[in-house]
Amino acid sequence: MASIKITPEPTIRRLPKYVHLLTILKHKGVKSVSSTMIAESLELDSTLVRKDIEATGIVGRPKTGFLVDKLIMALREHLNWNNEDDAFLIGAGSLGAAILGYKGFRECGLNIVAAFDNNPAKIGTVIKNVPVLDYTKLEEHCRRMHIHIGIITVPAPVAQQTADALIRGGVRAIWNFSPTQIATPQWVVVEYAQLTMSLAVLKRKLRETELTDNSIQETK
Amino acid sequence: MASIKITPEPTIRRLPKYVHLLTILKHKGVKSVSSTMIAESLELDSTLVRKDIEATGIVGRPKTGFLVDKLIMALREHLNWNNEDDAFLIGAGSLGAAILGYKGFRECGLNIVAAFDNNPAKIGTVIKNVPVLDYTKLEEHCRRMHIHIGIITVPAPVAQQTADALIRGGVRAIWNFSPTQIATPQWVVVEYAQLTMSLAVLKRKLRETELTDNSIQETK
Repeated sequence: MASIKITPEPTIRRLPKYVHLLTILKHKGVKSVSSTMIAESLELDSTLVRKDIEATGIVGRPKTGFLVDKLIMALREHLNWNNEDDAFLIGAGSLGAAILGYKGFRECGLNIVAAFDNNPAKIGTVIKNVPVLDYTKLEEHCRRMHIHIGIITVPAPVAQQTADALIRGGVRAIWNFSPTQIATPQWVVVEYAQLTMSLAVLKRKLRETELTDNSIQETK
Repeated sequence: MASIKITPEPTIRRLPKYVHLLTILKHKGVKSVSSTMIAESLELDSTLVRKDIEATGIVGRPKTGFLVDKLIMALREHLNWNNEDDAFLIGAGSLGAAILGYKGFRECGLNIVAAFDNNPAKIGTVIKNVPVLDYTKLEEHCRRMHIHIGIITVPAPVAQQTADALIRGGVRAIWNFSPTQIATPQWVVVEYAQLTMSLAVLKRKLRETELTDNSIQETK
């Protein structure tokens, strides 16, 4: 039995930053790179970067470090970006349409082949080259096309039933843009896109810096 | 001098989930709630939830716990959602337009008052009720309107110069949707929206479950 090494989530989140940096370096003509160089450019600890890179299984050479091309390939392979997955998006509202129009996801191995909605005015239309189909056919289409990834951009109250339909259709991974906590069988991967949480961090930190400034002025 | 308690980032990221759950409970007519009930609904550790709620400064009552209304208010206040911040968005492409059209951010105290772009075909147009202005006027408008939050949705290569213009204009918090690591003075808050990182986690975990399934079949 092949052993599967589970990569820690914080590591996975850093790997795309490395790919992005290395791609820039490649375009600048840089041929080889060390984990220390990457660490300095991204203001990260160099031991952390070395361990992250080791997780991909690539082995660097003494002094020269890693060939940029090979390191990009190893990172992309580990992130499963070289292997394109077809996905369905459910909820063709403003957020859904945005995701359909964002070209960056294709680069990360995600190909959205159809969108679903329950609004008769939207069904049969095409948004950003992606056809919008009838929500009632979701489960059937998932099964027929062997879709493994569902992207949920429906309003919060219907997020759970959307997830249920996807799972009945055989979907194994859900990217959830709704703020709803979704209950799923243990073998389904759920990742929350967390836009609201990200905004919450921004707003709270801004408030904390404002409060700090005020208290500094008060002490003057 | 007033002491400012810095809320840990993982706590901040959980608070919006509490607000969401409590809002549902409120609509169902629930009047009071305990941290244990919240913990069970969201499948979190109840000590963790109690500590998160304590960070807002609200004090529960023995037996009854918290009044739902007051807890929502305390959470929103701590998240700085009751205090609406005006923001500029830079880069009126497909991702930018999506963010302009997403109504959920207003609920979190973010009001996008203008977008900026360098494309003459876009300047002067209105997207989702938000006017698109000339990028070369960004710094001047930031200063004149006392804008403190900038949302960056420009292509990666111009993200740094966009951030520089925002900071010269007096912006103190940047919500960065580009994959570029941005260099800023220490007093500027930068939050990465991390859509690509979120997708990376989803794809990698899906791959790990697939590998696990295959190895189980191999051992049969």
